[in-house]
Amino acid sequence: MPITLDQLNTASLPEAVQLLDGLYEHSPWIAEKALLKRPFASLAALKHAMVTVLNEAGTAPQLALIRAHPELAGKAMVSKSLTAESSNEQNKAGLTDCTPQEFAHIQQLNAEYNAKFDFPFILAVRGPRGQGLPKADIIATFERRLNNPVDFERAECLRNIHRIAEIRLNDKFGFEPTLGNAVWDWHESLAQHTDPGYAELGQLTVTYLTEAHRACAAQLQQQMLDCGFDEVHIDAVGNVVGIYHGSDEGGFPAGQPQGETLAGEQRRRAGEKTLLTGSHYDTVRNGGKYDGRLGIYVPMACVQELHRAGQRLPFAIEVVGFAEEEGQRYKATFLGSGALTGHFNPAWLDQQDADGITMRDAMQHAGLPASLEAINALKRDPAKYLGFVEVHIEQGPVLNELDIPLGIVTSINASVRYLGEMVGMACHAGTTPMDRRRDAACAVAELALYAEKRAQQDGNSVATIGMLQVPNGSINVVPGHCRFSLDLRAPSDAQRDALNSDVLAELTALCERRGVRHTLDETMRASAAPSAPEWQARWASAVNSLGVPVHQLPSGAGHDAMKLHEVMPQAMLFVRGLNSGISHNPLESSTSDDIELSVRAFSQLLQQLANPNS
Amino acid sequence: MPITLDQLNTASLPEAVQLLDGLYEHSPWIAEKALLKRPFASLAALKHAMVTVLNEAGTAPQLALIRAHPELAGKAMVSKSLTAESSNEQNKAGLTDCTPQEFAHIQQLNAEYNAKFDFPFILAVRGPRGQGLPKADIIATFERRLNNPVDFERAECLRNIHRIAEIRLNDKFGFEPTLGNAVWDWHESLAQHTDPGYAELGQLTVTYLTEAHRACAAQLQQQMLDCGFDEVHIDAVGNVVGIYHGSDEGGFPAGQPQGETLAGEQRRRAGEKTLLTGSHYDTVRNGGKYDGRLGIYVPMACVQELHRAGQRLPFAIEVVGFAEEEGQRYKATFLGSGALTGHFNPAWLDQQDADGITMRDAMQHAGLPASLEAINALKRDPAKYLGFVEVHIEQGPVLNELDIPLGIVTSINASVRYLGEMVGMACHAGTTPMDRRRDAACAVAELALYAEKRAQQDGNSVATIGMLQVPNGSINVVPGHCRFSLDLRAPSDAQRDALNSDVLAELTALCERRGVRHTLDETMRASAAPSAPEWQARWASAVNSLGVPVHQLPSGAGHDAMKLHEVMPQAMLFVRGLNSGISHNPLESSTSDDIELSVRAFSQLLQQLANPNS
Repeated sequence: MPITLDQLNTASLPEAVQLLDGLYEHSPWIAEKALLKRPFASLAALKHAMVTVLNEAGTAPQLALIRAHPELAGKAMVSKSLTAESSNEQNKAGLTDCTPQEFAHIQQLNAEYNAKFDFPFILAVRGPRGQGLPKADIIATFERRLNNPVDFERAECLRNIHRIAEIRLNDKFGFEPTLGNAVWDWHESLAQHTDPGYAELGQLTVTYLTEAHRACAAQLQQQMLDCGFDEVHIDAVGNVVGIYHGSDEGGFPAGQPQGETLAGEQRRRAGEKTLLTGSHYDTVRNGGKYDGRLGIYVPMACVQELHRAGQRLPFAIEVVGFAEEEGQRYKATFLGSGALTGHFNPAWLDQQDADGITMRDAMQHAGLPASLEAINALKRDPAKYLGFVEVHIEQGPVLNELDIPLGIVTSINASVRYLGEMVGMACHAGTTPMDRRRDAACAVAELALYAEKRAQQDGNSVATIGMLQVPNGSINVVPGHCRFSLDLRAPSDAQRDALNSDVLAELTALCERRGVRHTLDETMRASAAPSAPEWQARWASAVNSLGVPVHQLPSGAGHDAMKLHEVMPQAMLFVRGLNSGISHNPLESSTSDDIELSVRAFSQLLQQLANPNS
Repeated sequence: MPITLDQLNTASLPEAVQLLDGLYEHSPWIAEKALLKRPFASLAALKHAMVTVLNEAGTAPQLALIRAHPELAGKAMVSKSLTAESSNEQNKAGLTDCTPQEFAHIQQLNAEYNAKFDFPFILAVRGPRGQGLPKADIIATFERRLNNPVDFERAECLRNIHRIAEIRLNDKFGFEPTLGNAVWDWHESLAQHTDPGYAELGQLTVTYLTEAHRACAAQLQQQMLDCGFDEVHIDAVGNVVGIYHGSDEGGFPAGQPQGETLAGEQRRRAGEKTLLTGSHYDTVRNGGKYDGRLGIYVPMACVQELHRAGQRLPFAIEVVGFAEEEGQRYKATFLGSGALTGHFNPAWLDQQDADGITMRDAMQHAGLPASLEAINALKRDPAKYLGFVEVHIEQGPVLNELDIPLGIVTSINASVRYLGEMVGMACHAGTTPMDRRRDAACAVAELALYAEKRAQQDGNSVATIGMLQVPNGSINVVPGHCRFSLDLRAPSDAQRDALNSDVLAELTALCERRGVRHTLDETMRASAAPSAPEWQARWASAVNSLGVPVHQLPSGAGHDAMKLHEVMPQAMLFVRGLNSGISHNPLESSTSDDIELSVRAFSQLLQQLANPNS
């Protein structure tokens, strides 16, 4: 008999503690302390309360909790002394059904992990709808996590424990993240298409206008139709565009290319607008399943719900699956969203991929018109739009570390990148006194530490020296040359410029002090795309209504919203990424619970937009 | 009519200024100011006084002096407006006889140099005995110096101006560094032998027991005989040993292997001792002409002088050309000097070179006995020796930068070397806030700057991170790994150990602070070889007697004296290296004037040792 939230909120404390028995392994105190915060507006709010209790408890109780867990496929499993919950979870992951080799391998990993960290390896092995994670994924994750620093790994274990508790709580409440599961399945299904050569490796790679890319477009088109979109088409650059009309049946579907004669033209009525949303469906090489695609599927799930309920909003919803954002096959980053803002670069048509195929030929092969006229006609009239929103997996560690499922983007950061070389004088490491040196590596070291400190001052700026090398360095030669890269980002152009100017001034000063010189070539510069305050507020209100804490953060990575920002107000919603927010990597991951929350937040945004005064 | 030092010391100031006219291009004020320090004990003292005047004059007069010089093969030469001295010098370097291509190339270099430094390129183009430098060497040096920092290049021009002034001064005084020239010629002659494959490249490479190496040994043997050594032989490891008997004709020649039956055995008398000296004649690949060899030839020149004068000292002099110090063909560093201290490693005999030839085979091919018995018999009895002295080119920038020709070594530094890796966590450079990072490169940067600062505190310790690399670094990825080397040296074991312990403690602390970990493997550790105070004092007295400033400095590089240090007192004399003291490089260079001073210093040491109370 599932518990209800009302039942939990009104029970006596001992009864309520009993209701939540078994969520955290051998540790009822967590639920008990969280229950002091009753009533809870949602399961999400209850989960967050328990997360907060554990985070505030300090290291000793956290370690005790971790150590209360059984080893994965460990001795307790063999001796049948697992808790009922653990046994069920490990069984579903197929871990009670290992081959002797797999079992021996996991025992070895357990031994190494325990020796290094002094606590057992914890992994939430139940995926969406109680399915187990594939054994191979479990072992790969185990091996990867063995390399982590101990404090990081302690936190990672706690995050997995919260995920385990979330799944157990869902079971107790008979709650299924149905929408999240559906969106999860869509991602799984779309991820079956991958470019030639990658399927064999089990890798996901979908680059512009390949067979796999066109299969994705066709699948998205069909899924949009199935969801109940009124009009769906693939445009002249391969974007998949779905429109769900507004309640005013005469509403002009803004997404229809301007140049086309429309059957619906007569339905046009002045003042009727469209909300634009979407993200990209191409991927980097060996990428993740959620980068981009989550921003197409989340609004699709919302439209499906509206369609099922027979509901029309006082505005149209236009969802675009952008064909190209990653710039992998051709150096044409943001091609898909750029076409909507009139920024398609005509020179791109003649650009060749690694096999010598021009983009024009690739377009023609894909059945696209490959004409600039058709592409230019994709440009949208901003006056017809309310704005642009985009859901995206965070691709960073912030939400994951804070144990918060959703985040509201304040700005897509401005950035500037350089490649540089420091030139001092190579000399004998034994015979050259410290005050006679012009050490190129120490000069770059000083730059790195200054940039690190300076970015830290801003709180939300970042500075990175990602490439660093003394070419042909020898153990006994003071470096005469040192190559480096420099990547600076900040939420506004002004903040980026101030950071940039301080870092470059210090570079000049330290070169002067050290008697070295440098070269520095700017390789990239992008303006910030601050989120429109009113759209940020809408996201905040939507997230808050779910009982989920509202957290705001800048986006350090670029997104399609940067392009739309040039012509209309925009704001993004981030969904927590697991595994420290790893992205552009097969380990990129989310949960169906988090996805469910993002669908509900998007639905809330739509409803609040439809009823601003409710 | 040459000037005499007495004439200069007693002339009126205007007369003396006139006598020194033309030493420094269009700048009589330098000699004028130096003359206030009269009387001068030696030409070397006068030279140093002028160096001091210019060094203390400040930047503006220094720049004016540099700019008073003509361009190399420049317009002034073409228009015949050079000073007589410059014209003579450029003519001797063959620069007035350039091909049109060479002339155009030099003009291009002049233009680039002037544009970068805003003063003309100055190079002392007259070699020993007024010979010009080869045009190819001039052009190679010009190209290399174009890469120098501006303040360094200003100092380098001044050093060359001092060298030009020295040559002009020698001309005025009719002074020829005869001993220096002879030793210079010996080096040139010995440098004609080079290993197969290097002659074609114009490179000097002499590795253990090659044909070139054996030719060097034969040549050294003949040169020793020509100098008047009483006994000369090549020993069981290829060392060339020459003995010049002491005045006591019955003196036992200590250098004779202990096991051998000697014709001179009956001459043995208790208490008669030998001064041991020498250095190595093998080279690194593409090495310099002076590294090692200077320490054989300088005492040979002294013995030649003694022999010519028919003088015997109250002790024997044993000069050893060590066969192997660099460990190039076989990993058997210090084989030659180690044989004298009983440190020949028997396993070396079976070591193979790159062509699979064992050392045993190489020895047999060279006509050496290749028996451990014969090698072990080379071990010297320390009781029979006064001590060991070694002359060596500095291989560092200290004397060159101070404009001082000779230096007395206080200690051969203790050292320790490591190879390490810093391990943090790779993450997205855009999306990972500064306070969420575990940047492996920033951690190494902190180590580098700490080690630099800590070594600087000691004054004469050195710390170097010569190898530094973020493997597979990307511009937009925070480094998860960073590889580095660490080389720490100090004049005593205790000082090295304190430096080492502080640097490792900081490494541990910064890893803790930054949540990163590291690996560190010790690859080498060598004890310090402090010079014997009484032998340092003898060198200081000898140098001082020449009117040359006494400068003491540690040796950062290892030398044969390190091995002899294990069994007897030792002290080294360094000779300034040109081109910032570059070594293990064809640009390693000295002057016949500096070499002359080192021969005279060594002779002084011998005379003072012979007459300690004079």
